[in-house]
Amino acid sequence: MPVPAPQPESDDSKLRLRFWLALLKASKHVEVEIRDRLRREFDTTLPRFDVMAMLWKSETGLKMSELSSELMVSNGNVTGIVDRLVKDGLVVRVAIKGDRRASLVRLTSRGREAFSAMAAAHETWVARLLAELDDQDLARTLAVLDRVRG
Amino acid sequence: MPVPAPQPESDDSKLRLRFWLALLKASKHVEVEIRDRLRREFDTTLPRFDVMAMLWKSETGLKMSELSSELMVSNGNVTGIVDRLVKDGLVVRVAIKGDRRASLVRLTSRGREAFSAMAAAHETWVARLLAELDDQDLARTLAVLDRVRG
Repeated sequence: MPVPAPQPESDDSKLRLRFWLALLKASKHVEVEIRDRLRREFDTTLPRFDVMAMLWKSETGLKMSELSSELMVSNGNVTGIVDRLVKDGLVVRVAIKGDRRASLVRLTSRGREAFSAMAAAHETWVARLLAELDDQDLARTLAVLDRVRG
Repeated sequence: MPVPAPQPESDDSKLRLRFWLALLKASKHVEVEIRDRLRREFDTTLPRFDVMAMLWKSETGLKMSELSSELMVSNGNVTGIVDRLVKDGLVVRVAIKGDRRASLVRLTSRGREAFSAMAAAHETWVARLLAELDDQDLARTLAVLDRVRG
Protein backbone atom coordinates (compact mmCIF):
# COMPACT_ATOMS: atom_id res chain seq x y z
CA MET A 1 0.00 0.00 0.00
CA PRO A 2 1.49 3.34 -0.97
CA VAL A 3 2.30 5.75 1.82
CA PRO A 4 -0.04 8.72 1.56
CA ALA A 5 1.64 11.93 0.52
CA PRO A 6 2.10 14.47 3.32
CA GLN A 7 -0.50 17.23 3.37
CA PRO A 8 1.39 20.31 4.48
CA GLU A 9 -1.41 22.65 3.39
CA SER A 10 -3.95 20.92 5.54
CA ASP A 11 -1.63 20.89 8.56
CA ASP A 12 -0.93 24.57 8.00
CA SER A 13 -4.58 25.42 8.01
CA LYS A 14 -5.19 23.35 11.15
CA LEU A 15 -2.44 25.28 12.96
CA ARG A 16 -3.94 28.57 11.78
CA LEU A 17 -7.36 27.48 12.95
CA ARG A 18 -5.94 26.65 16.38
CA PHE A 19 -4.22 30.03 16.41
CA TRP A 20 -7.48 31.80 15.61
CA LEU A 21 -9.37 29.95 18.35
CA ALA A 22 -6.64 30.80 20.88
CA LEU A 23 -6.71 34.45 19.74
CA LEU A 24 -10.48 34.59 20.11
CA LYS A 25 -10.45 32.88 23.49
CA ALA A 26 -7.74 35.15 24.93
CA SER A 27 -9.47 38.23 23.60
CA LYS A 28 -12.91 37.19 24.92
CA HIS A 29 -11.41 36.36 28.31
CA VAL A 30 -9.97 39.86 28.75
CA GLU A 31 -13.09 41.49 27.28
CA VAL A 32 -15.46 39.66 29.65
CA GLU A 33 -13.33 40.67 32.63
CA ILE A 34 -13.27 44.30 31.54
CA ARG A 35 -17.03 44.41 30.89
CA ASP A 36 -17.62 42.90 34.30
CA ARG A 37 -15.38 45.37 36.13
CA LEU A 38 -16.73 48.39 34.25
CA ARG A 39 -20.20 47.36 35.33
CA ARG A 40 -19.34 46.62 38.95
CA GLU A 41 -16.88 49.42 39.64
CA PHE A 42 -18.19 52.21 37.41
CA ASP A 43 -21.75 51.12 36.64
CA THR A 44 -21.00 51.52 32.95
CA THR A 45 -20.71 49.47 29.77
CA LEU A 46 -17.90 48.73 27.32
CA PRO A 47 -19.54 50.60 24.38
CA ARG A 48 -19.95 53.64 26.64
CA PHE A 49 -16.31 53.38 27.72
CA ASP A 50 -15.25 53.05 24.06
CA VAL A 51 -17.20 56.17 23.03
CA MET A 52 -15.65 58.16 25.87
CA ALA A 53 -12.17 56.85 24.94
CA MET A 54 -12.65 58.10 21.37
CA LEU A 55 -13.81 61.51 22.58
CA TRP A 56 -10.96 61.71 25.08
CA LYS A 57 -8.43 61.68 22.24
CA SER A 58 -10.11 64.57 20.43
CA GLU A 59 -9.71 68.16 21.68
CA THR A 60 -12.34 69.66 19.42
CA GLY A 61 -14.86 66.83 19.48
CA LEU A 62 -16.10 64.36 16.89
CA LYS A 63 -19.06 64.11 14.53
CA MET A 64 -21.45 61.24 15.12
CA SER A 65 -20.41 59.77 11.76
CA GLU A 66 -16.74 59.82 12.83
CA LEU A 67 -17.58 58.13 16.13
CA SER A 68 -19.62 55.37 14.55
CA SER A 69 -17.16 54.61 11.77
CA GLU A 70 -14.24 54.35 14.19
CA LEU A 71 -16.19 52.17 16.57
CA MET A 72 -17.56 50.00 13.75
CA VAL A 73 -21.08 50.16 15.12
CA SER A 74 -24.22 51.63 13.61
CA ASN A 75 -25.08 55.31 13.93
CA GLY A 76 -28.26 54.31 15.74
CA ASN A 77 -26.33 52.58 18.51
CA VAL A 78 -23.92 55.47 18.96
CA THR A 79 -26.85 57.90 19.12
CA GLY A 80 -28.37 55.98 22.03
CA ILE A 81 -25.06 55.89 23.90
CA VAL A 82 -24.36 59.59 23.32
CA ASP A 83 -27.92 60.53 24.38
CA ARG A 84 -27.37 58.83 27.72
CA LEU A 85 -23.91 60.38 28.18
CA VAL A 86 -25.46 63.82 27.52
CA LYS A 87 -28.18 63.12 30.08
CA ASP A 88 -25.49 62.16 32.61
CA GLY A 89 -23.64 65.44 31.98
CA LEU A 90 -20.52 63.66 30.66
CA VAL A 91 -20.85 64.77 27.04
CA VAL A 92 -22.21 67.82 25.18
CA ARG A 93 -23.37 68.35 21.61
CA VAL A 94 -21.91 71.50 20.05
CA ALA A 95 -23.24 73.13 16.85
CA ILE A 96 -20.82 73.29 13.90
CA LYS A 97 -20.65 76.72 12.22
CA GLY A 98 -21.93 76.49 8.65
CA ASP A 99 -23.26 72.93 9.05
CA ARG A 100 -26.82 72.76 10.26
CA ARG A 101 -27.17 69.01 9.88
CA ALA A 102 -24.21 67.82 11.96
CA SER A 103 -22.96 68.64 15.43
CA LEU A 104 -19.80 67.82 17.34
CA VAL A 105 -19.85 65.59 20.36
CA ARG A 106 -17.38 66.50 23.10
CA LEU A 107 -16.59 65.37 26.67
CA THR A 108 -17.51 67.86 29.39
CA SER A 109 -14.92 68.52 32.09
CA ARG A 110 -16.89 66.15 34.29
CA GLY A 111 -16.74 63.61 31.46
CA ARG A 112 -12.98 64.04 31.18
CA GLU A 113 -12.57 63.48 34.90
CA ALA A 114 -14.82 60.43 34.87
CA PHE A 115 -13.02 58.91 31.90
CA SER A 116 -9.61 59.60 33.37
CA ALA A 117 -10.51 57.58 36.48
CA MET A 118 -11.94 54.73 34.39
CA ALA A 119 -8.93 54.66 32.06
CA ALA A 120 -6.52 54.41 34.99
CA ALA A 121 -8.52 51.54 36.50
CA HIS A 122 -8.77 49.87 33.08
CA GLU A 123 -5.00 50.00 32.66
CA THR A 124 -4.54 48.38 36.07
CA TRP A 125 -7.03 45.58 35.29
CA VAL A 126 -5.32 44.82 31.99
CA ALA A 127 -1.90 44.81 33.64
CA ARG A 128 -3.14 42.32 36.25
CA LEU A 129 -4.87 40.11 33.70
CA LEU A 130 -1.64 39.91 31.70
CA ALA A 131 0.71 39.86 34.69
CA GLU A 132 1.99 36.38 33.90
CA LEU A 133 3.47 37.40 30.56
CA ASP A 134 6.96 38.85 30.67
CA ASP A 135 8.18 41.74 28.54
CA GLN A 136 9.73 39.47 25.92
CA ASP A 137 6.52 37.44 25.52
CA LEU A 138 4.56 40.65 25.20
CA ALA A 139 6.88 42.32 22.68
CA ARG A 140 7.20 39.24 20.46
CA THR A 141 3.50 38.52 20.49
CA LEU A 142 2.61 42.16 19.88
CA ALA A 143 4.75 42.11 16.75
CA VAL A 144 2.95 39.04 15.45
CA LEU A 145 -0.50 40.40 16.31
CA ASP A 146 0.25 43.64 14.49
CA ARG A 147 0.82 41.57 11.35
CA VAL A 148 -2.74 40.23 11.50
CA ARG A 149 -3.99 43.17 9.51
CA GLY A 150 -6.72 45.21 11.11
CA MET B 1 17.24 69.13 39.78
CA PRO B 2 16.99 65.46 40.81
CA VAL B 3 16.52 62.91 38.07
CA PRO B 4 13.07 61.34 38.44
CA ALA B 5 13.10 57.70 39.51
CA PRO B 6 12.31 55.23 36.75
CA GLN B 7 8.75 53.91 36.80
CA PRO B 8 9.00 50.32 35.71
CA GLU B 9 5.48 49.50 36.87
CA SER B 10 3.94 52.19 34.75
CA ASP B 11 5.94 51.13 31.68
CA ASP B 12 4.89 47.55 32.27
CA SER B 13 1.25 48.45 32.34
CA LYS B 14 1.59 50.58 29.19
CA LEU B 15 3.13 47.63 27.33
CA ARG B 16 0.30 45.38 28.56
CA LEU B 17 -2.26 47.92 27.46
CA ARG B 18 -0.68 48.03 23.99
CA PHE B 19 -0.70 44.23 23.94
CA TRP B 20 -4.40 44.14 24.82
CA LEU B 21 -5.27 46.66 22.10
CA ALA B 22 -3.28 44.67 19.52
CA LEU B 23 -4.99 41.46 20.67
CA LEU B 24 -8.41 43.08 20.38
CA LYS B 25 -7.67 44.59 16.98
CA ALA B 26 -6.33 41.33 15.51
CA SER B 27 -9.26 39.37 16.90
CA LYS B 28 -11.85 41.87 15.63
CA HIS B 29 -10.21 41.94 12.21
CA VAL B 30 -10.54 38.18 11.76
CA GLU B 31 -14.02 38.16 13.29
CA VAL B 32 -15.32 40.89 10.96
CA GLU B 33 -13.96 39.02 7.93
CA ILE B 34 -15.55 35.76 9.05
CA ARG B 35 -18.93 37.40 9.75
CA ASP B 36 -18.82 39.01 6.34
CA ARG B 37 -17.99 35.80 4.48
CA LEU B 38 -20.55 33.73 6.39
CA ARG B 39 -23.16 36.26 5.37
CA ARG B 40 -22.11 36.54 1.74
CA GLU B 41 -21.24 32.92 1.01
CA PHE B 42 -23.65 31.04 3.27
CA ASP B 43 -26.30 33.64 4.08
CA THR B 44 -25.75 32.92 7.77
CA THR B 45 -24.50 34.59 10.94
CA LEU B 46 -21.63 33.93 13.34
CA PRO B 47 -23.91 33.04 16.32
CA ARG B 48 -25.71 30.55 14.05
CA PHE B 49 -22.35 29.09 12.94
CA ASP B 50 -21.22 28.89 16.58
CA VAL B 51 -24.37 27.02 17.63
CA MET B 52 -23.94 24.55 14.78
CA ALA B 53 -20.25 24.10 15.66
CA MET B 54 -21.19 23.20 19.23
CA LEU B 55 -23.81 20.71 18.05
CA TRP B 56 -21.39 19.24 15.52
CA LYS B 57 -19.11 18.09 18.33
CA SER B 58 -21.90 16.29 20.17
CA GLU B 59 -23.20 12.93 18.94
CA THR B 60 -26.20 12.79 21.23
CA GLY B 61 -27.15 16.47 21.19
CA LEU B 62 -27.08 19.22 23.79
CA LYS B 63 -29.55 20.80 26.19
CA MET B 64 -30.36 24.46 25.61
CA SER B 65 -28.74 25.25 28.96
CA GLU B 66 -25.51 23.54 27.84
CA LEU B 67 -25.52 25.43 24.55
CA SER B 68 -26.05 28.81 26.14
CA SER B 69 -23.48 28.35 28.90
CA GLU B 70 -20.80 27.23 26.43
CA LEU B 71 -21.55 30.09 24.07
CA MET B 72 -21.73 32.62 26.91
CA VAL B 73 -24.96 34.10 25.59
CA SER B 74 -28.40 34.24 27.16
CA ASN B 75 -30.87 31.34 26.85
CA GLY B 76 -33.24 33.71 25.06
CA ASN B 77 -30.77 34.37 22.27
CA VAL B 78 -29.96 30.70 21.79
CA THR B 79 -33.68 29.89 21.68
CA GLY B 80 -34.18 32.30 18.78
CA ILE B 81 -31.23 30.87 16.87
CA VAL B 82 -32.30 27.26 17.45
CA ASP B 83 -35.90 28.06 16.43
CA ARG B 84 -34.67 29.34 13.08
CA LEU B 85 -32.34 26.36 12.58
CA VAL B 86 -35.27 24.01 13.28
CA LYS B 87 -37.40 25.91 10.76
CA ASP B 88 -34.62 25.53 8.19
CA GLY B 89 -34.46 21.78 8.80
CA LEU B 90 -30.87 21.90 10.07
CA VAL B 91 -31.62 21.05 13.69
CA VAL B 92 -34.21 18.97 15.59
CA ARG B 93 -35.42 19.03 19.16
CA VAL B 94 -35.56 15.55 20.73
CA ALA B 95 -37.42 14.71 23.95
CA ILE B 96 -35.32 13.44 26.87
CA LYS B 97 -36.73 10.35 28.57
CA GLY B 98 -37.72 11.12 32.11
CA ASP B 99 -37.25 14.88 31.75
CA ARG B 100 -40.36 16.68 30.58
CA ARG B 101 -38.94 20.16 30.94
CA ALA B 102 -35.81 19.86 28.83
CA SER B 103 -35.11 18.56 25.34
CA LEU B 104 -31.95 17.83 23.39
CA VAL B 105 -31.00 19.85 20.36
CA ARG B 106 -29.26 17.92 17.59
CA LEU B 107 -28.10 18.56 14.01
CA THR B 108 -30.11 16.78 11.31
CA SER B 109 -28.14 15.02 8.58
CA ARG B 110 -28.83 18.07 6.38
CA GLY B 111 -27.50 20.21 9.22
CA ARG B 112 -24.34 18.10 9.46
CA GLU B 113 -23.78 18.43 5.71
CA ALA B 114 -24.38 22.18 5.77
CA PHE B 115 -22.05 22.69 8.71
CA SER B 116 -19.35 20.50 7.19
CA ALA B 117 -19.28 22.74 4.09
CA MET B 118 -19.20 25.91 6.19
CA ALA B 119 -16.47 24.58 8.48
CA ALA B 120 -14.25 23.71 5.51
CA ALA B 121 -14.74 27.20 4.03
CA HIS B 122 -14.14 28.77 7.45
CA GLU B 123 -10.83 26.91 7.80
CA THR B 124 -9.74 28.17 4.38
CA TRP B 125 -10.64 31.80 5.19
CA VAL B 126 -8.73 31.67 8.46
CA ALA B 127 -5.71 30.11 6.75
CA ARG B 128 -5.73 32.90 4.15
CA LEU B 129 -6.21 35.65 6.73
CA LEU B 130 -3.20 34.34 8.66
CA ALA B 131 -1.15 33.31 5.63
CA GLU B 132 1.60 35.84 6.38
CA LEU B 133 2.49 34.25 9.70
CA ASP B 134 4.93 31.35 9.53
CA ASP B 135 4.73 28.21 11.67
CA GLN B 136 7.20 29.51 14.24
CA ASP B 137 5.29 32.79 14.68
CA LEU B 138 2.08 30.83 15.06
CA ALA B 139 3.41 28.27 17.53
CA ARG B 140 5.15 30.84 19.74
CA THR B 141 2.19 33.17 19.78
CA LEU B 142 -0.25 30.35 20.42
CA ALA B 143 1.73 29.37 23.51
CA VAL B 144 1.56 32.94 24.83
CA LEU B 145 -2.15 33.32 24.04
CA ASP B 146 -2.94 30.08 25.86
CA ARG B 147 -1.43 31.65 28.97
CA VAL B 148 -3.96 34.47 28.89
CA ARG B 149 -6.39 32.39 30.89
CA GLY B 150 -9.80 31.86 29.37
